[in-house]
Amino acid sequence: MKQLFSCVFKISRRLSGSILEDLNRRTIHLSVPCVCKSKNQKKLFGKKLQHMVQMMALTDPEIEKILQPFRQQVKEQGDLVRKLKTEKAPELDVARAVADLKQRKHALEAKELELAPKDLFDRAKLEDLLKQKFFVDQSFAIYGGINGLYDFGPMGCAVKANLLQLWRNFFVLEEQMLEVDCSMLTPEPVLKASGHLERFQDYMVKDLKTGECFRADHLIEAQLEKLATDKKISQEKKEEIKRLLATIDNLSKDDMGQAIKQYNMKSPITGNELSEPMEFNLMFATSIGPTGHIKGFLRPETAQGIFVNFKRLLEFNQGKLPFAAAQIGNAFRNEISPRAGLIRVREFTMAEIEHFCDPTNKDHPKFENVADLNLTLYTGCNQMDGKPPEVKRLGDAVKEGLICNETLGYFLGRIYLFMMRVGIDPKKLRFRQHMSNEMAHYAKDCWDCECKTSYGWIECIGCADRSCFDLLAHTKATGIKLVAERKLAEPRIVDVVECQPQMKVLGKSFKKEAKIVSEYLSKLEAAEIEQIEQKIKDNGEVEVTVNSQTFKVTADMVIIKKYQKKLHVEEIVPSVIEPSFGIGRVMYSVFEHNFKMREGDEQRTYLSLPAEIAPYKCSVLPLSGNKEFHLLVKELSKALTMHDISHKVDDSSGSIGRRYARTDQISIPFGITIDFDSLKSPFTATLRERDSTKQVRAPVEELPKMVQDLSIGRRTWDDILNNYPLFEQQEATKDK
Amino acid sequence: MKQLFSCVFKISRRLSGSILEDLNRRTIHLSVPCVCKSKNQKKLFGKKLQHMVQMMALTDPEIEKILQPFRQQVKEQGDLVRKLKTEKAPELDVARAVADLKQRKHALEAKELELAPKDLFDRAKLEDLLKQKFFVDQSFAIYGGINGLYDFGPMGCAVKANLLQLWRNFFVLEEQMLEVDCSMLTPEPVLKASGHLERFQDYMVKDLKTGECFRADHLIEAQLEKLATDKKISQEKKEEIKRLLATIDNLSKDDMGQAIKQYNMKSPITGNELSEPMEFNLMFATSIGPTGHIKGFLRPETAQGIFVNFKRLLEFNQGKLPFAAAQIGNAFRNEISPRAGLIRVREFTMAEIEHFCDPTNKDHPKFENVADLNLTLYTGCNQMDGKPPEVKRLGDAVKEGLICNETLGYFLGRIYLFMMRVGIDPKKLRFRQHMSNEMAHYAKDCWDCECKTSYGWIECIGCADRSCFDLLAHTKATGIKLVAERKLAEPRIVDVVECQPQMKVLGKSFKKEAKIVSEYLSKLEAAEIEQIEQKIKDNGEVEVTVNSQTFKVTADMVIIKKYQKKLHVEEIVPSVIEPSFGIGRVMYSVFEHNFKMREGDEQRTYLSLPAEIAPYKCSVLPLSGNKEFHLLVKELSKALTMHDISHKVDDSSGSIGRRYARTDQISIPFGITIDFDSLKSPFTATLRERDSTKQVRAPVEELPKMVQDLSIGRRTWDDILNNYPLFEQQEATKDK
Repeated sequence: MKQLFSCVFKISRRLSGSILEDLNRRTIHLSVPCVCKSKNQKKLFGKKLQHMVQMMALTDPEIEKILQPFRQQVKEQGDLVRKLKTEKAPELDVARAVADLKQRKHALEAKELELAPKDLFDRAKLEDLLKQKFFVDQSFAIYGGINGLYDFGPMGCAVKANLLQLWRNFFVLEEQMLEVDCSMLTPEPVLKASGHLERFQDYMVKDLKTGECFRADHLIEAQLEKLATDKKISQEKKEEIKRLLATIDNLSKDDMGQAIKQYNMKSPITGNELSEPMEFNLMFATSIGPTGHIKGFLRPETAQGIFVNFKRLLEFNQGKLPFAAAQIGNAFRNEISPRAGLIRVREFTMAEIEHFCDPTNKDHPKFENVADLNLTLYTGCNQMDGKPPEVKRLGDAVKEGLICNETLGYFLGRIYLFMMRVGIDPKKLRFRQHMSNEMAHYAKDCWDCECKTSYGWIECIGCADRSCFDLLAHTKATGIKLVAERKLAEPRIVDVVECQPQMKVLGKSFKKEAKIVSEYLSKLEAAEIEQIEQKIKDNGEVEVTVNSQTFKVTADMVIIKKYQKKLHVEEIVPSVIEPSFGIGRVMYSVFEHNFKMREGDEQRTYLSLPAEIAPYKCSVLPLSGNKEFHLLVKELSKALTMHDISHKVDDSSGSIGRRYARTDQISIPFGITIDFDSLKSPFTATLRERDSTKQVRAPVEELPKMVQDLSIGRRTWDDILNNYPLFEQQEATKDK
Repeated sequence: MKQLFSCVFKISRRLSGSILEDLNRRTIHLSVPCVCKSKNQKKLFGKKLQHMVQMMALTDPEIEKILQPFRQQVKEQGDLVRKLKTEKAPELDVARAVADLKQRKHALEAKELELAPKDLFDRAKLEDLLKQKFFVDQSFAIYGGINGLYDFGPMGCAVKANLLQLWRNFFVLEEQMLEVDCSMLTPEPVLKASGHLERFQDYMVKDLKTGECFRADHLIEAQLEKLATDKKISQEKKEEIKRLLATIDNLSKDDMGQAIKQYNMKSPITGNELSEPMEFNLMFATSIGPTGHIKGFLRPETAQGIFVNFKRLLEFNQGKLPFAAAQIGNAFRNEISPRAGLIRVREFTMAEIEHFCDPTNKDHPKFENVADLNLTLYTGCNQMDGKPPEVKRLGDAVKEGLICNETLGYFLGRIYLFMMRVGIDPKKLRFRQHMSNEMAHYAKDCWDCECKTSYGWIECIGCADRSCFDLLAHTKATGIKLVAERKLAEPRIVDVVECQPQMKVLGKSFKKEAKIVSEYLSKLEAAEIEQIEQKIKDNGEVEVTVNSQTFKVTADMVIIKKYQKKLHVEEIVPSVIEPSFGIGRVMYSVFEHNFKMREGDEQRTYLSLPAEIAPYKCSVLPLSGNKEFHLLVKELSKALTMHDISHKVDDSSGSIGRRYARTDQISIPFGITIDFDSLKSPFTATLRERDSTKQVRAPVEELPKMVQDLSIGRRTWDDILNNYPLFEQQEATKDK
């Protein structure tokens, strides 16, 4: 998880900045995923994707013509950076070249955004809907609220529960992962070992009078961007500012302090002087137990709970590699001043997978299942070359080494399929590879699954090959070996040299100190033992120094044994491939990508969530408040519950049209309307589908099973349309 | 939730003490619950209960004869307490009588325990199994572990997820509750209003040299119990100690300090002197944001998240009462020194329901569905009278006023049915009513669903009528009215007197202060307005005092309006009925109640969890490692996944018997064994049921559906036995 630190910061910068891109104009080839359970589901899924492909515009050659010089600029500089690195040029030269590269990327991206067709999406309207229908609201709102804390209301909570259930089926059940549920309270030594104590931090500056805090990089960026558009400032100065802006992600504490002084930056709220930048650890601290001696934190990620349980999990898996463990749970980050709505929060749900495998064999037995998927990949190389993301067959991307191994590739494919299932727009999804300079030193390869939203491209899922870093870190801290055994192809004969201290003799000579001498002797390496043996042979004794004390060890104090051992296994530290899901960000992206307006009526907004994650699957609407409907509504509601269909009865007095609009807003995919014909034999009612707004008339007794089949994709709406008569809107006036 | 505080403390005392009871010898009538979805399920469930009833021994008249004088003793004292209370006797006299009553209850309970047939349950063996099969282990074990923090491994996590899914279906879906998911981080003012800041605390004492902390009541109780058995101590002294022990739940801080001094108590570990008792708040504190100004806590319960969202939830429910909201999530209590294993932990999952209803109408439309259930009720009266719990028809208990309303009764019934579904032994479940002196002043009635475990009777679920306490508390703290509207049977005409300050005129006279004067005037009550009106009439002006300043208000500064208004609704503060589940405690009780040994082999322990909550539903065991089995195992595994059946393939080399034992330990209810007959047409395999260990032979292609039907109770094992040939144990030797 640790390479996520840098990208966490990066994203927020991207958010507050203006680096937005658009993929609308690119060709995307989509294949039918291979995991649909039933034929019908496959049909349904294939159809949906086909439709999406039709919706996508091709690359616009006019726009490409304008972008060409910008792309060329990036490429030239990218090549220069590569050349300097190959030639091992002085660090300062490389840094300067990288800064210039970033500036050129910035210009390209700004131009792309300027030329992209404008999205009609209106964030304020979505936020209105989410709040009004209580999908989500600020926590403790009646107490004035706390920034970065949100509560999910009934609708948001249902979507979240459905999404997590799907995640569990899709990943844990289907891949037979070992799911765990670990404590959020975490003692300090664990987070010291993982590196969070030292490195999980941001820089902040304080308003010297009010004490209000700001994230230093955000503040500097915002003020520089404002300056860059100031007409009173010389062109030369503007170039300088642009150069600084381009390096904003890499500024040190001192650089930031200097920028604040140089540009005379003040608090954006009060205009007061600002403090020097200072480190601020993003973890929430607390103490465990009454003495205050056990310092603890709320976990900043769920991954560590899996790593510290590695031994037990391996045992549970009967010692065999590979295996994957997973955890769903909350994590906490004490953001300095969270302002990006649901994207940057202080408490959030993650779903993380740690796949442990042999470092020399990262093939995946099920890779072929996803090899034919075509994904939008934004490789590090393309980012360096000023090229746009490319659509590539996953199998080819792994074969060509763009993605460093099959297991990592397999997870990218599975992530893609999952994102399609939950309703992400494939045009607004890409996998961006970390460039070598943004990846942690131990990481082998790292891809972010990014979704395009009104906040820009945001990282929703990270997927990294972390090598053996985490297990080694906890081994180092605890002395407990976190290793697996690999069977050797051929048994291996090894020489063993052992030093056995003779406690009785040691005790007589060294009394209390005998124990530390004995421990020292038994831990010696083969070469050291041989040295000691030689010295005893030569001089009858040898001096050893333990804890700054010197002891004379004589021949009778140790027995030195040499023998050969046949090894059938060797110990290895497994590699970890880690897909890490930010559930709140996935949810938010799903909301944005499914926020729609009815044609010709901007006020009639609705959410087109897939039935699987919609909060309710079905609505039951009696045409009017007429008492004759009561019994049937009650019976139908009972039958739906028997079929595990979450549903909502709306027997309020609004017109049927207004009630449909209301159910559309909370994304109910199917609606049963009971009218006067429902009370006469043959008892029938109408079934309406949310996205098409079409209705059919069908026997009441068939409806619960029909809605169940539709909700889990066992049957398609087209199939229903083909088998039942279409129905035109009821007249509410009948009821008088 | 606040009345739970006292019972939280109480239970822990009960745990460490010796108050254990046994219901084994009592008659319990059980009715078939009315919520089974299918006929088969009903049959299955009815059968199970019948079987349980047969297992129960009747009341033993011999034992009752011995207990009779003890019961009489309690009753006499209970009557005295009642008499003193009726006569409003001096508080000290009542307290003395209550202390004596407790002592007599204590003696009765000890005698009951002594006479009860001994349970064969071996806690150490269960704990071994839970740890070894990684149901649960201490968190951060490789770092030495932290008391009171536990991690659920793959098996525990699966049981927990299944249990929560069942809870969600059983309560949220079936009752159409509004589920929410709120922040755990909670700012101080919320918990100040709820009373947690002031009252959610224990007393602790410190070892004066080492600083180690102990819970004061636990320490005093343990040392007094030791003293009471000391042969050197006089009978008189022993009586005194017993009296003190009996009042241990009600000792004040000073009482505890005095007891420690009087009996010269020392640290049980070092023998060092102890500090005076001091208050210790059980909440984990942290600060939110970088300035440290926003003090926060980890929530000690999930309920407050629902209360603070009441307004939005009511809106979501279109303003209508009654409705229920629910929340599943973690809560945190910084226990002073948790030692009771999984029962007393610092981080735990709760599932809480807050049912909001009209305080004048607590009937429940579905009460009839549970009215015929017979529950074991331990009423406050029976506790006072020295009587055992009684089995009572729920409908009668509500009618007789033992349970104070239908809604509370409905939830007790639903809780009972839920506990049966998850595998609680009905003989080890009772509902204990809080006695009037242990209930919070605002609570109307409160019942704990208690399970008998090796720790004694532990509260797993609380169910209380909390009246309107919580909503009023948050209204008082925020000034925001948390009320609902009740439609009046007849519109009501009310007189309105309004004072409208004239800002222009006020502004001229009072300048800056005009605003506060205006605010003061507009908030006046009718009577005050009339007084002012009179004075202005009499003197042309009136003096008003706002913020210690006096202002002269003249006739032109206010317009006083009087008119009549027709009201159709009135505002009411809803009552709250709160069932609150401790998920970890329910799980632990389920584990204890389902821990079994095979007859004649104490080493072969297993868990007989209901299929619905078992971690895997099915095992797949190839008879041997023979390669011919591989393909079939893979295909079968795929087919099971398609049927949403979580399963485990065990192709390790152990004998089939040993592998069955292994799957029994992790409670897998069904096992498919593939042998050489499975490879020949007609392709068949065996299916084994865990509890009976019986096997049948059936076509391979029918097995996935069969296991699915068995797992969700759509089909019974008896039905399978009747339709497929019985199969005797395979011979592993065939495979050579």
